[in-house]
Amino acid sequence: MSFRASVLTLYPEMFPGSLGVSLAGRALERGDWALDVHQIRDFATGKHHVVDDTPAGGGPGMVLKADVLARAIDEVADDPKADERPKLLMSPRGKQLDQAMVRDLALGPGAVIVCGRFEGVDERVIEARGLQEVSIGDYVLSGGEPAAIVLLDAIIRLLPGVMGSDLSELDESFENGMLEHPHYTKPREWEGREIPPVLLSGDHGAIEKWRKEKSQELTARRRPDLIEKSKE
Amino acid sequence: MSFRASVLTLYPEMFPGSLGVSLAGRALERGDWALDVHQIRDFATGKHHVVDDTPAGGGPGMVLKADVLARAIDEVADDPKADERPKLLMSPRGKQLDQAMVRDLALGPGAVIVCGRFEGVDERVIEARGLQEVSIGDYVLSGGEPAAIVLLDAIIRLLPGVMGSDLSELDESFENGMLEHPHYTKPREWEGREIPPVLLSGDHGAIEKWRKEKSQELTARRRPDLIEKSKE
Repeated sequence: MSFRASVLTLYPEMFPGSLGVSLAGRALERGDWALDVHQIRDFATGKHHVVDDTPAGGGPGMVLKADVLARAIDEVADDPKADERPKLLMSPRGKQLDQAMVRDLALGPGAVIVCGRFEGVDERVIEARGLQEVSIGDYVLSGGEPAAIVLLDAIIRLLPGVMGSDLSELDESFENGMLEHPHYTKPREWEGREIPPVLLSGDHGAIEKWRKEKSQELTARRRPDLIEKSKE
Repeated sequence: MSFRASVLTLYPEMFPGSLGVSLAGRALERGDWALDVHQIRDFATGKHHVVDDTPAGGGPGMVLKADVLARAIDEVADDPKADERPKLLMSPRGKQLDQAMVRDLALGPGAVIVCGRFEGVDERVIEARGLQEVSIGDYVLSGGEPAAIVLLDAIIRLLPGVMGSDLSELDESFENGMLEHPHYTKPREWEGREIPPVLLSGDHGAIEKWRKEKSQELTARRRPDLIEKSKE
């Protein structure tokens, strides 16, 4: 069975977005992954289909109601007890997404992805349904939808059949915790700038060494935190 | 003059994507920001409009050609010398996006955003055109497009007129370097779970204190790095 993503959102028209194009889009057509998108509002009761209410204790913004969201989550799985997919909530409060988490998810059966609103989701539904909060970075978005698309894009390219096998090599260089070395391609000279001669030398050992050095230099300069992490 | 985003991509059909819907979409219609999207391939010469070539020194993947991308960047600005917008390249090697960077960009005239391919862009065009590499997180995407949408989403909600004024308050709580406290809304009891009584007490001092404590607890548990950062 292929990877299945079920997305819960107030803006279903944002999907598949970029996931319907290029690599992810072709993989979707081939059935390498499946996507179903659900309007949270459809699970609200009452004439006005209210999905949010003011925060208990006061303050700005609105809070997504526990009962509505729980009903949506429960109905998305054909059989909630047999659906072993992790239930994720895209949220700036969440665990930070990294490539290791992407790989874990790509090896699993799929994910139920709740697109939060910034103002928040009633904490009780997070607890009661075991939602895992995931953050794609330390910035604030208008909603969880662009974050869900980023998460799925990262996962899909790792699914079997989606990319050529040479990608795994590149991935490992990223997972080793270093930023990638600079790239060059033809022409040899452009606007007075030349490709570093070592890359044209045909000496594979020297090329490998140069790339490793450049990668370490760049990482030390831009992301000393990654160097620290790799020592742990 | 409002914020103007010029996007360079091999997949223009991925735009505006979620930026054409809801908050960002309404702001686009109102003219609170402007978007123009350019197909990089249109700037390639020759019969086959080739945009990439094999990496100098060997290795997997393809590299986006310096001459093609430079031509695209130069033509996107009506007058390159007068166009003071920062030129960004979405790339996992870049400086990590955070809310402070989002705010800086939102205060400026806009951005030229190049959507890189993972395999890379010829380093010489990065140097020659002063591209600032920006990463939205430590994971690998199929291309820079979903990252560009995330970046623009974060910026647009901060532009004048886009959101209600109460949002600035919420933002600061995030910028103070702490994760947000839990939220609750009606009903008072749901599935046997109650809203914490203090939030219903009407005692604003006690509510404020509870929220601050919960925010610190959550941050200490999930993101001790943010606590360390706030001490610097």
